[in-house]
Amino acid sequence: MARERQLSRRTLLGGAAATAGAVTLTTTAAGTASAAGRDVDVAVVGAGLAGLTAARDLVAAGRTVAVLEARDRVGGRVVNLPLGNGGVTEGGGEFIGPTQDRIKALADSLGVATFPTYNTGKNLLYKDGKKTAYATDGLLGAVPPVDVAGLANAAIVQASLNDMAKQIPVDAPWTAAKAAEWDRQTFETWLRANAVVPSAKFLLDVACTSIFSAEPRELSLLFVVSYIATAGNASNPGTLERLTETANGAQELRFVGGSQLVPARLAATLGDRLVLSAPVRSIARSGGRYVVTADGTTVTADRVVVAVPPPLAARIAYEPLLPAGRDQLTQRLPMASVGKAIAVYDTPFWRADGLNGQVVSDTGVVSSTFDNSPPDASYGALMGFIEADEMRALDSASEAAVRAAVLKDYVTYFGEKAASPSSFVLQRWNNEAYTRGGPVSIAAPGVLTQYGPALREPVGGIHWAGTETSTYWMGFMDGAVRSGERVAREVLAAL
Amino acid sequence: MARERQLSRRTLLGGAAATAGAVTLTTTAAGTASAAGRDVDVAVVGAGLAGLTAARDLVAAGRTVAVLEARDRVGGRVVNLPLGNGGVTEGGGEFIGPTQDRIKALADSLGVATFPTYNTGKNLLYKDGKKTAYATDGLLGAVPPVDVAGLANAAIVQASLNDMAKQIPVDAPWTAAKAAEWDRQTFETWLRANAVVPSAKFLLDVACTSIFSAEPRELSLLFVVSYIATAGNASNPGTLERLTETANGAQELRFVGGSQLVPARLAATLGDRLVLSAPVRSIARSGGRYVVTADGTTVTADRVVVAVPPPLAARIAYEPLLPAGRDQLTQRLPMASVGKAIAVYDTPFWRADGLNGQVVSDTGVVSSTFDNSPPDASYGALMGFIEADEMRALDSASEAAVRAAVLKDYVTYFGEKAASPSSFVLQRWNNEAYTRGGPVSIAAPGVLTQYGPALREPVGGIHWAGTETSTYWMGFMDGAVRSGERVAREVLAAL
Repeated sequence: MARERQLSRRTLLGGAAATAGAVTLTTTAAGTASAAGRDVDVAVVGAGLAGLTAARDLVAAGRTVAVLEARDRVGGRVVNLPLGNGGVTEGGGEFIGPTQDRIKALADSLGVATFPTYNTGKNLLYKDGKKTAYATDGLLGAVPPVDVAGLANAAIVQASLNDMAKQIPVDAPWTAAKAAEWDRQTFETWLRANAVVPSAKFLLDVACTSIFSAEPRELSLLFVVSYIATAGNASNPGTLERLTETANGAQELRFVGGSQLVPARLAATLGDRLVLSAPVRSIARSGGRYVVTADGTTVTADRVVVAVPPPLAARIAYEPLLPAGRDQLTQRLPMASVGKAIAVYDTPFWRADGLNGQVVSDTGVVSSTFDNSPPDASYGALMGFIEADEMRALDSASEAAVRAAVLKDYVTYFGEKAASPSSFVLQRWNNEAYTRGGPVSIAAPGVLTQYGPALREPVGGIHWAGTETSTYWMGFMDGAVRSGERVAREVLAAL
Repeated sequence: MARERQLSRRTLLGGAAATAGAVTLTTTAAGTASAAGRDVDVAVVGAGLAGLTAARDLVAAGRTVAVLEARDRVGGRVVNLPLGNGGVTEGGGEFIGPTQDRIKALADSLGVATFPTYNTGKNLLYKDGKKTAYATDGLLGAVPPVDVAGLANAAIVQASLNDMAKQIPVDAPWTAAKAAEWDRQTFETWLRANAVVPSAKFLLDVACTSIFSAEPRELSLLFVVSYIATAGNASNPGTLERLTETANGAQELRFVGGSQLVPARLAATLGDRLVLSAPVRSIARSGGRYVVTADGTTVTADRVVVAVPPPLAARIAYEPLLPAGRDQLTQRLPMASVGKAIAVYDTPFWRADGLNGQVVSDTGVVSSTFDNSPPDASYGALMGFIEADEMRALDSASEAAVRAAVLKDYVTYFGEKAASPSSFVLQRWNNEAYTRGGPVSIAAPGVLTQYGPALREPVGGIHWAGTETSTYWMGFMDGAVRSGERVAREVLAAL
């Protein structure tokens, strides 16, 4: 595994580049280009989907742009990991689904194709030490084989959450009629009052950790309901099932070549406007313009787009100081806790057992899995999410220990064949310098009602992007793209 | 007022120095001393009470020390503000009380005397547009004239919270038997279930904003109960009333010459070991030692003490990366929101009306006040806290607008004479670069049970101090001193 990680570090874009053909991005070229410092219309901080999309639109409008990226790769929370067998899989953002129009349009424009997430056969429920296969349609994306009272209770809870989500103005959840009531309690408090049948509470808990990589106790009810509300577009209000489902849901499709192919190809269109390995340390106003200082380079610009997660935006030194509301907001939007573990096998052997590779479990370090095999099934890949409390418990564990714990779960779910993968790749977002958690910032009670408007409100010539700022598909690749498009419009209107 | 602020900026230690006689601290001397870089046993980040106390103990043990302070003054959240009439008052930490043994011992050792907070005469309750004076002993530090049902309910709630606090091990609240139950709900949720009489809820709400400068919705019940538990010492368990009361409580005494006299005199004993105006940007391990880089200076040390609030500690770049648990903790301990407004009058005129200057109010931007006049009452000073939602609403208001709003409240509480102070001083902690809120970090549900141990656990040679890390009087000057003493012991044992 040590070797696999080394590989992964050396050629992070290896898989993507191989598939894309033309895409090569190295720090060397960018470093040279940056040495002299730059003077541009707009500096963009962060080369994730948000920053890259903003840069694309600004360049298209004839503006000069410099994109400063802390990592030696683009994509932010979207990364391809080489599997050691020539294949590649997603270490971060992976799936797209219906109403995620903007990431789809972007991928289309870059010639990145999609294919359906493997979803043929039955799901597995592992609960109370018992394994049950079940069909994949109905409530919460499927009808898990729990007691009827639990199913009925879960259905009512789901309907309630969807009803509440309909009452949320997605561009300002803090103005909802019941915002104060929903923002003074945790999702856990609300679930305990509403998901009163234990099996219903179990299903909702699993939905919560799967969606947020956070425990219900960490989340404001208003934030949960708002997140559901954003899981749609202007003509299709968000629903809980669109978040949880595979078919017809947010896990419906994957990208051929891996999701990082999208930001990689997008970055290629920007040429040397992009500077890698340039973590931004300060943004200072100077003579009506801004000086953006990164390790090894400095950019002077009329406007700045900050397209990094809020807790990382907080770590940049701003001069003059940001307004208190903006600063305190960024003190209160921590990253959730997530990792992904992908085990590779010669074949997707579970398919022969009539299983789709998707598990819901009440135990183990991995309580939800997907079949991450490539479209041609030339090998098998099981991907498991390690989430919230389970991820935190393993933050400091050795990779060997995590591997052992994950494979133990995979054996429990899929049998002894799962014990011996040909390779194993682990992505721990909590341990990444330029994310420190994932997949998305979460909000505890009080945060949205107290600070919500500061999410997107520009500060002088500084504008905010990133999936957390999106009014649709916040927390997803689609939200990142939307935020980039929005911030570009905002900047162009102001320039 | 503009003039007053200018004064305040130019001679932040003016008042303290005048009283102290010997204390003079300027950036110039420190700047010169630092120019060459330093090599020491221990680098201390932050010259608040915690960092200075740690430095004192390390120096006393024969160690070489360098203290790097971001501001051009010492004291952190403890600052004296000149009043424009030759007097001085506290813009931050001000009061001490019983069981706060360590700040008292420190002040004694530096020859800083205490005097009783003015507490003669009646309190005022302003509620539902009605003003009522009441005696200052009994429940919650006094028996506010609300309905009997409300008083009875409040007494039961107070007893419950004190009982719960007794179940908290102060060095590890997350191990309390009911930690999980208390950490999955907001204090607001618990209050709504327990403070069912409206006037009782009002009293507890005021207690909450007064203690935490945060709304009950922002706080984990476990955090609230833990905070109460720490309001004592090893022989006197913490109680809610010790937090809220003046006599026999945390507001009992003040320092002659203003509280900043304590850190100022402590700093004077450190000589040129202290470097002001040196915000630390990075802490990097190098050859088994640490390189601490601040604006304008670099210190090399065997060990590092970081004695700044958690959300500011998060803004330092660490190499190697901090463990995920420590990083995510600092993403989840935001500063509360607080300001202090002090109006100065020729005399403390309210005393003649039989009032002690202490108000509890259900309205206004200032809902709790104190008589901040000097011990000889040579002039009058009314100090008002602006807290939580009220402070946030005024973060971006002009100082003139805040002054007008505060004086309107003071007139409501104390009559027309309050309308025309001879001077007015405002300290808005949310707008301070090197605090960005106050008085203390707060914890939402989940934070303590998920991340508590990371509060004090050293990371390699990096040790953590600051009032947030104290097992007694967390959030107070006493906690800061205790944390400095503890971290010095920790470092000395490790060196």
